[in-house]
Amino acid sequence: MSGIWGNNLKISIFGESHGTAIGITIDGLPSGIELDLEEIQREMERRAPGRNNLSTARKEGDKPEILSGFFNGKTTGTPLCGIIRNSDTRSKDYGKIKDLMRPGHGDYTGAIKYAGFNDYRGGGHFSARLTAPLVFCGAICKQILSKRGIEIGAHIKSIRNVKDKAFDYINISKEDLISLRDMELPLIDRSKEELIRKTILEAKSQGDSVGGIIECAVVGIEAGVGEPFFDSVESTLAHLLFSVPAVKGVEFGLGFGITKLYGSESNDEFYYEGEKVKTSTNNNGGILGGITSGMPIGFRVAMKPTPSITKKQKTINIESKKDETLSVEGRHDPCIVQRAIPVIEAVTAIGILDLIKGRDGCKI
Amino acid sequence: MSGIWGNNLKISIFGESHGTAIGITIDGLPSGIELDLEEIQREMERRAPGRNNLSTARKEGDKPEILSGFFNGKTTGTPLCGIIRNSDTRSKDYGKIKDLMRPGHGDYTGAIKYAGFNDYRGGGHFSARLTAPLVFCGAICKQILSKRGIEIGAHIKSIRNVKDKAFDYINISKEDLISLRDMELPLIDRSKEELIRKTILEAKSQGDSVGGIIECAVVGIEAGVGEPFFDSVESTLAHLLFSVPAVKGVEFGLGFGITKLYGSESNDEFYYEGEKVKTSTNNNGGILGGITSGMPIGFRVAMKPTPSITKKQKTINIESKKDETLSVEGRHDPCIVQRAIPVIEAVTAIGILDLIKGRDGCKI
Amino acid sequence: MSGIWGNNLKISIFGESHGTAIGITIDGLPSGIELDLEEIQREMERRAPGRNNLSTARKEGDKPEILSGFFNGKTTGTPLCGIIRNSDTRSKDYGKIKDLMRPGHGDYTGAIKYAGFNDYRGGGHFSARLTAPLVFCGAICKQILSKRGIEIGAHIKSIRNVKDKAFDYINISKEDLISLRDMELPLIDRSKEELIRKTILEAKSQGDSVGGIIECAVVGIEAGVGEPFFDSVESTLAHLLFSVPAVKGVEFGLGFGITKLYGSESNDEFYYEGEKVKTSTNNNGGILGGITSGMPIGFRVAMKPTPSITKKQKTINIESKKDETLSVEGRHDPCIVQRAIPVIEAVTAIGILDLIKGRDGCKI
Amino acid sequence: MSGIWGNNLKISIFGESHGTAIGITIDGLPSGIELDLEEIQREMERRAPGRNNLSTARKEGDKPEILSGFFNGKTTGTPLCGIIRNSDTRSKDYGKIKDLMRPGHGDYTGAIKYAGFNDYRGGGHFSARLTAPLVFCGAICKQILSKRGIEIGAHIKSIRNVKDKAFDYINISKEDLISLRDMELPLIDRSKEELIRKTILEAKSQGDSVGGIIECAVVGIEAGVGEPFFDSVESTLAHLLFSVPAVKGVEFGLGFGITKLYGSESNDEFYYEGEKVKTSTNNNGGILGGITSGMPIGFRVAMKPTPSITKKQKTINIESKKDETLSVEGRHDPCIVQRAIPVIEAVTAIGILDLIKGRDGCKI
Repeated sequence: MSGIWGNNLKISIFGESHGTAIGITIDGLPSGIELDLEEIQREMERRAPGRNNLSTARKEGDKPEILSGFFNGKTTGTPLCGIIRNSDTRSKDYGKIKDLMRPGHGDYTGAIKYAGFNDYRGGGHFSARLTAPLVFCGAICKQILSKRGIEIGAHIKSIRNVKDKAFDYINISKEDLISLRDMELPLIDRSKEELIRKTILEAKSQGDSVGGIIECAVVGIEAGVGEPFFDSVESTLAHLLFSVPAVKGVEFGLGFGITKLYGSESNDEFYYEGEKVKTSTNNNGGILGGITSGMPIGFRVAMKPTPSITKKQKTINIESKKDETLSVEGRHDPCIVQRAIPVIEAVTAIGILDLIKGRDGCKI
Repeated sequence: MSGIWGNNLKISIFGESHGTAIGITIDGLPSGIELDLEEIQREMERRAPGRNNLSTARKEGDKPEILSGFFNGKTTGTPLCGIIRNSDTRSKDYGKIKDLMRPGHGDYTGAIKYAGFNDYRGGGHFSARLTAPLVFCGAICKQILSKRGIEIGAHIKSIRNVKDKAFDYINISKEDLISLRDMELPLIDRSKEELIRKTILEAKSQGDSVGGIIECAVVGIEAGVGEPFFDSVESTLAHLLFSVPAVKGVEFGLGFGITKLYGSESNDEFYYEGEKVKTSTNNNGGILGGITSGMPIGFRVAMKPTPSITKKQKTINIESKKDETLSVEGRHDPCIVQRAIPVIEAVTAIGILDLIKGRDGCKI
Repeated sequence: MSGIWGNNLKISIFGESHGTAIGITIDGLPSGIELDLEEIQREMERRAPGRNNLSTARKEGDKPEILSGFFNGKTTGTPLCGIIRNSDTRSKDYGKIKDLMRPGHGDYTGAIKYAGFNDYRGGGHFSARLTAPLVFCGAICKQILSKRGIEIGAHIKSIRNVKDKAFDYINISKEDLISLRDMELPLIDRSKEELIRKTILEAKSQGDSVGGIIECAVVGIEAGVGEPFFDSVESTLAHLLFSVPAVKGVEFGLGFGITKLYGSESNDEFYYEGEKVKTSTNNNGGILGGITSGMPIGFRVAMKPTPSITKKQKTINIESKKDETLSVEGRHDPCIVQRAIPVIEAVTAIGILDLIKGRDGCKI
Repeated sequence: MSGIWGNNLKISIFGESHGTAIGITIDGLPSGIELDLEEIQREMERRAPGRNNLSTARKEGDKPEILSGFFNGKTTGTPLCGIIRNSDTRSKDYGKIKDLMRPGHGDYTGAIKYAGFNDYRGGGHFSARLTAPLVFCGAICKQILSKRGIEIGAHIKSIRNVKDKAFDYINISKEDLISLRDMELPLIDRSKEELIRKTILEAKSQGDSVGGIIECAVVGIEAGVGEPFFDSVESTLAHLLFSVPAVKGVEFGLGFGITKLYGSESNDEFYYEGEKVKTSTNNNGGILGGITSGMPIGFRVAMKPTPSITKKQKTINIESKKDETLSVEGRHDPCIVQRAIPVIEAVTAIGILDLIKGRDGCKI
């Protein structure tokens, strides 16, 4: 089962890159929530391709049509389905490489799993285009969470070897997160923008691609959300994050870095600030025993370089059963990281809303 | 819902560290599988405390009693429940720190979530002792996978700053993995053993603790296992891995390191070795598009330092609502990494068996 | 969560009677299955309104558009979404009775559950129109089951007091079931057709409605499908059957009648017919211990009279909080039973395919 | 997957009739609920065998031991596991009929499903003994529901041809339901007790058995509980009810009888009684559109005659592949209906608590 997820909020995605439409059904939204459709569209455009020379020249409208669950400007509480028609598809681009398995993609594994019957055009169901419905869904979840005082935001932590500053997991504010949303390359240290742009364009000019790290934070979330063991906040978010194409690593708080500390350094000491419980460090990224501590949630996600490159690569032809070489033509992203930022925020919003619904039904 | 997981193989865990018993029910095992109970017990002992001066002096029998689903030496196919009685409990050790929230533990977040009604003794349901049923379950899953030609193994990749060699994700063999199982400190480079031992004992002598990284591999798995999106191999394993207490990061293949490469470097090129499809590198850790490629699966897990330390720490008293200091007395592990290795292997086996059952019902 | 169901085959429905579209996503279909789209359309038309004077005069195109999961005439194995646009809607018919709760409908309970935010037009998400996506899904499942030798069929067992003959649960054949599909009023004893037609039209002429019983059978299913306890064949099918609007009773085999027998009469004795195991009676409707015995599955479903009637009824106005009277205007069915037959067959096909996938992944 | 059920409250059952123990894990109970253990034991004894000459002479202690999730007299909110050791087992009684498939039982279908590896002794996992953990779980759920003002009760509606009066679905009170609990044969019309007793004992004296109908009601439940479609109240309860061994039919409100009415008769008209919404009839059994209306829930369940009878029956020997005759020896119930009453109440309580948790997290 590939496309259904959730315990308290359930989502069901569908679609192929070059099929009729892609979409998502969201089951379990609270009723009576006013949705700002323009805000949803803004989120869609953060992910949409064709905005500048850093990403693919494909222009996808990415205008979701809501089919159900929305009435008089508000959620009805019944399943909300949104679809996006596929329009700017050049399927013939792909026909000729049908039997050539693109390295780094799901072509080969999909062909094995589905015995060759899956839609191979543009990656089919494996395409990163499927993240558009996730952004649509996440935009709705974000609006609901925002009404409850919770904001989610992310920035480029690094592109190849170029690093941005890190979030301050103690003092980060909602405004910090919101301000990042309008940036083409969301960075804390804006001075790195040119270097990152140059890194991406250099790779592009060589028919190559680069990857990077996204850092995400959740601010305004109360203590007590999540579960021990299988529905821990980390498990829930990591499950969704690793569903996003190109993600190869996820770490919370200090993550892999925490392994170099002593327990006396890594433990976050508690103290009272008035009535409120805080920790003086936040090495655990706002999560203890799988449950939120009330401190900001912080984590990082490793995104591999876009596998579609025009540079020649060796690969196999599964029809002729022979080795061949391949140059992936078409319009591709030399770097997917900046476009993945709203996707990472979206799945985070979906995961957090699911957990909050499990805690109190999502009272607002 | 904290304790139930799975799509095709479902598990349900229960218990508290100082309660009557802990255990697990496994629903959906194939019937007629002969189980080697001694082998299960060996796995239990790999995790069990009290084996040497590197871990806590508590001696837990950790002898599971199978209550159901096992008849005439074989699985029946109906739910198999195994329980482990709690015996060597010194609950009074914990009564005195009931209201003092141990930093780095789930004490505070659990108290909020359960409104103070959870069993606080020894961490209660949050205790790493709950990983014993996971090892029991994983030992069963491993035996089933082994009959299908799949082996799982792990080693200490690092303890604090001391590093072992890495697995060779191309050439690693079943024998490599099996040979690690008998080691007290499973290492590829045995020359690091003394330094690691020293690192742990030094931390212990200071009333402190250390963490580390575990590397795990799955060998012998065919291509085509897993799903795109929500039930990807990465999502499935990461979900389970982050359910293990103290895990703060998970990365597959090159993981975070892949973000520093160009696409032309990170893509794994395919080639035919006879009829068999292979990749000349394995930077994606055996997983493409969420589905196994037939190459070994490889990943790493960051374990934080044991939060229970005797060094004085600042914390809060939730009864008096005041800041206090705390020294966590009792018998604790100065390092949890070596004992966590069979746990990481166990949840990996559980996840892989679930996915394989989804693929073909687990024909053997 | 209202709209997602399934263990091995998952379905997700959405839509409101007068919204933009209704639809369903089917997750977990085997790949490479050729679908006969005309046959699907024939099933849609069996349920569609406006075919004759026995049902509502509304004409709904009920032409599903497949958005995904279908490529080159075959299932891809990835989620298959089909939608049906709502066209012939006269929403103003309902606006005037917005606050008047129609007796026998979900108006009042929906208004409470969704705090008044649900789409009230034409029953909204509660409308029997939502069974159209179920028929679409069921038509696909039927084709898959048919390739495996399994046929599903149903007939009118009774309308009000007029009774058809019963299926012979021992000797019923696939041909018996298939022959019923083309009938406007599917009956074994065709001599009852006129009386049934008269019963329905008399009720219609009085602004009233009638209900009835549907009997359904599954032929060609092997022994061993289903599970003890929670995923028994009876539990699985009853769950789906009671999801169909207007269903108030479900009974398998002799059903309530079995309570009047002695055990020596109700037990189905086994015997060998060559290598094949059969029972000389089939009072248990082909299911023992929740699992198929290899004999035909047989059950009956009670459908209440259509609640939409033009006869005056007492009800409440939830806006004014006063009692009022109501005559439900609009174009309604004086009897829903004959149109519900393909719906009952559809959910049966969905349930059986889910169980078969759980047994062997649905090898064909 | 046989033994796990639930959306918001999850249960996991395990065990075989003659294995080591049977039990259940309940995941998702609210924390801090005081449990009356004596009351739980009283419920266990309502189901327990050996109380009088109407049921089997086997004496099972049926004393559940709580292993987890219960601390200082209250639920902790973490998984609560209760087990019951099997003691009075005479396994040899069954060994000799191992290959003879008892008619009406799950012997044959289980042997096919599990390829002969399931525990055959006393029906193994298919045994009605597995309902003991359900009663344990239901007793806990009932106590929680009772604190919220909801009571559940049931009576014998009929044994073979002897009928009790029906519940009044309009005026039935909590006291009516509670008063039934202490009766050996729970009846509204006590004058039928002797006739029922006689009917059962006559069947017993002939080595035969009888079945009957159980009627159950839920009083004090508010409007708005349940979901349209797949998690309707009817779907949820029917799913659980059909999981109980020997159940062959379930009907809500007028059930099959509603098919004989006109819509103008079957529709339940609404009216205001002060602020409260009521219906003047309750033919829909308190459920409209799958959701509670605030009126009492009422339904009936058909229980087949106990299949274990000493009368000679024809059957097959799956080892020799020949037809044989069989007389089921051992200590069996000539009638299971009266012992099934607490089971029906229990699964009803489990289903209702699951739905209420989905509605508001079960605030008390």
